[in-house]
Amino acid sequence: MHGWFPNMILLYMKENTMKAGRDKVHCEIIAVGTELLMGQIANTNARDIARELSSLGVGVYYQTVVGDNEKRLAEVFCQALNRSELIILTGGLGPTEDDITRETVAKVLELPLEKNKAWEEKLDEFSRRSKRPLVAMNLRQAMAPRGGRLLFNSRGTAPGIYLEAKNRIIILLPGPPREMLPMFKEQVVPLLRKKLQKEGNLGILQSKVLRIIGLGESAMAEMIRPLLENQGNPTLAPLAKRAEVHLRITAHGSSPEESGALIEAKAEEVRRILGDYIYGEDEENLEFVVANLLWEKAKTLALAESCSGGLLSHRLTNIPDSSKYFLAGLVTYSNEAKINILGVDPELIASLGAVSDEVAREMASGVRRLCHADIGLGITGIAGPGGETPGKPVGLTYIALEGDGFKFCNRYEFWGSRLDIKERASQTALNLLRLYLLGKLKAK
Amino acid sequence: MHGWFPNMILLYMKENTMKAGRDKVHCEIIAVGTELLMGQIANTNARDIARELSSLGVGVYYQTVVGDNEKRLAEVFCQALNRSELIILTGGLGPTEDDITRETVAKVLELPLEKNKAWEEKLDEFSRRSKRPLVAMNLRQAMAPRGGRLLFNSRGTAPGIYLEAKNRIIILLPGPPREMLPMFKEQVVPLLRKKLQKEGNLGILQSKVLRIIGLGESAMAEMIRPLLENQGNPTLAPLAKRAEVHLRITAHGSSPEESGALIEAKAEEVRRILGDYIYGEDEENLEFVVANLLWEKAKTLALAESCSGGLLSHRLTNIPDSSKYFLAGLVTYSNEAKINILGVDPELIASLGAVSDEVAREMASGVRRLCHADIGLGITGIAGPGGETPGKPVGLTYIALEGDGFKFCNRYEFWGSRLDIKERASQTALNLLRLYLLGKLKAK
Repeated sequence: MHGWFPNMILLYMKENTMKAGRDKVHCEIIAVGTELLMGQIANTNARDIARELSSLGVGVYYQTVVGDNEKRLAEVFCQALNRSELIILTGGLGPTEDDITRETVAKVLELPLEKNKAWEEKLDEFSRRSKRPLVAMNLRQAMAPRGGRLLFNSRGTAPGIYLEAKNRIIILLPGPPREMLPMFKEQVVPLLRKKLQKEGNLGILQSKVLRIIGLGESAMAEMIRPLLENQGNPTLAPLAKRAEVHLRITAHGSSPEESGALIEAKAEEVRRILGDYIYGEDEENLEFVVANLLWEKAKTLALAESCSGGLLSHRLTNIPDSSKYFLAGLVTYSNEAKINILGVDPELIASLGAVSDEVAREMASGVRRLCHADIGLGITGIAGPGGETPGKPVGLTYIALEGDGFKFCNRYEFWGSRLDIKERASQTALNLLRLYLLGKLKAK
Repeated sequence: MHGWFPNMILLYMKENTMKAGRDKVHCEIIAVGTELLMGQIANTNARDIARELSSLGVGVYYQTVVGDNEKRLAEVFCQALNRSELIILTGGLGPTEDDITRETVAKVLELPLEKNKAWEEKLDEFSRRSKRPLVAMNLRQAMAPRGGRLLFNSRGTAPGIYLEAKNRIIILLPGPPREMLPMFKEQVVPLLRKKLQKEGNLGILQSKVLRIIGLGESAMAEMIRPLLENQGNPTLAPLAKRAEVHLRITAHGSSPEESGALIEAKAEEVRRILGDYIYGEDEENLEFVVANLLWEKAKTLALAESCSGGLLSHRLTNIPDSSKYFLAGLVTYSNEAKINILGVDPELIASLGAVSDEVAREMASGVRRLCHADIGLGITGIAGPGGETPGKPVGLTYIALEGDGFKFCNRYEFWGSRLDIKERASQTALNLLRLYLLGKLKAK
């Protein structure tokens, strides 16, 4: 073992950060399992636990994954004892040889493992009912470090363990998410809430996401720079997504009302600056927002897609009840389809090319007429990687929108992979629809 | 900072585990991002990197997640330098204030940040093309610690960095998975392979995935039960995906030839049992396989989609050069579109409903005629959650295929969410196309 390992044990035994009055409980999540290290599965347990804890006002400061190896697990666990008040371990509680979490935690804490009679009987009953032999190894699952409290597992044989020792809260949970998550929500959250309330450590951490389109991450950051530079409570965190940006506002308060009010005040400041660049909040994606606008304004839509290849139709039809306003989406990929189905003038395609302002307009107009729709939208472009011609690079796209007495067309140069270009084209088209339905798109 | 922090820096500078001749390179993955700690997303990057590394024979021993906080990131990075030869960091390379990975790594390694002229020009060009201002913050993305090599980012503005320093390999990658993973596969893996080969550190762990359609996971497991029960080298691991099953064969050998031969022999045993249920291998998805068959057989395709809402068109047009055989995909969502565009008999819809065997056949036949395609395919169904009628549950779908002198239609009941049903319908339709092109679909 490394030289610093014993020092760390000494350290955590001297220091008691929880009583030292930090403003917030520090939590650390340790996942134990070689299948995680080898990349067979993602650590969704850490995500799910962190999400639950954040609504309790408990901050997660580290997540670690370590294999089924005693030395490395002991090392990581010691380190956690040294820097965090609440340590949650997932995995390694099962019946096989490589399940070592229970034993390693007990060893590091210098606590003996004691048998829990009630769980032993439960295992025995389980063995009789499932007609599986109760091999000696199984009984390890009824053991807990002295002072530990078993957490009932309604979906498996390994109970969890809740333990207070060395001024720390230590929680051991089974690895399978379908066992872990209900145990955490139903048993651990109430225990933690009670404990933290007693210690006066319970806060409420809430957050809201503002969804932004038409601005890159840095351009947005530039616009709200004074807000980003003077952060406190709430905090602001920009996050770049494909063809949109999210801005998360997170506030800490002593009640949901207090943190909610802090968030709302900050969101209002952001809205005053970003205005219509903000298209939605939290889980509302762009197709959802456009679908709602179509529904509210009682408008029908028909699409003629070329380079976006059906992605825009797919996104709009992901919204339940889209048949109420979505009449058709014609992926007219070949020139013949553009001519025969949409009625695009073949001479325009011959002289200007299928990727041109004029053809996009005829596509929008043609599909609108064909489907008797209120709004027709046409997209034509080069998704790549091939298909580039002089003056027409990969990514070049024209998007046209025709409404009642309204015509619009614009030229775009998107970039990235074929799928990126399809995504950006569909995202931009949705935003044009949104602005048109809001009465904020200028004819062009 | 904690008392042990400076000691760790000293330690890693003295120790050179790579030269000390461990049998396997130790790798550690550090993900930087508060959105991971707060549980907004799972750390899929660590999973994907670990999976790629395992096929290089590199073992991942720790995965850590830490927030956008300089002190804690420096602490975690120092610790990694102390115990691992290869350290991969993801996230925190973007343009905003809270992106601190580049600066923190340089500071801990005591290396100055230097500007990369070529990338600065690229950012400048990107700014011009996207008509977004090149604000000062963006230029941080063209900086790398002295001696670092930039890794090209074809999907975003932040390049990655490959660096050898203090007897360690340190790699910085962008956080968004769509930028990170291609960069890792296309640039990092070849660099690591070369480096590890030179150091004589390359063990060979190889794997191949067989992709299976038309069988559930347990039905497949039942068919190959003898192979699953007697595993050694290679190992076999089934994995259920949405509407398909993957079977991973992994072999260990002293040379690529040896592990490759072991895999091939085992794959042959599996193929003898599963036959045409295996549709592809490794990264070949079903749309890719169908696209290749259309290309090989020189057949053109036109689709008429209803409940799948454009997803099938989207998937087929994700394959580059799909315009060679994909003529059109008409998402005829409304009954009027089915009647007016495809020429479906309105009396059929009135008497049997739009979701019926007859309408599916007329859709396939109509779109084939309209587009002069070799193959016409029609899909009609109920994607839900609404739209159920007596005798027609959510998920009921008819898929029809018409070719030269060939007609086929079948009834399916798919299950799950709206998106699940769209996915299963598109997956099933692709498999019908595959079997038809292979001459293995019986008229019906």
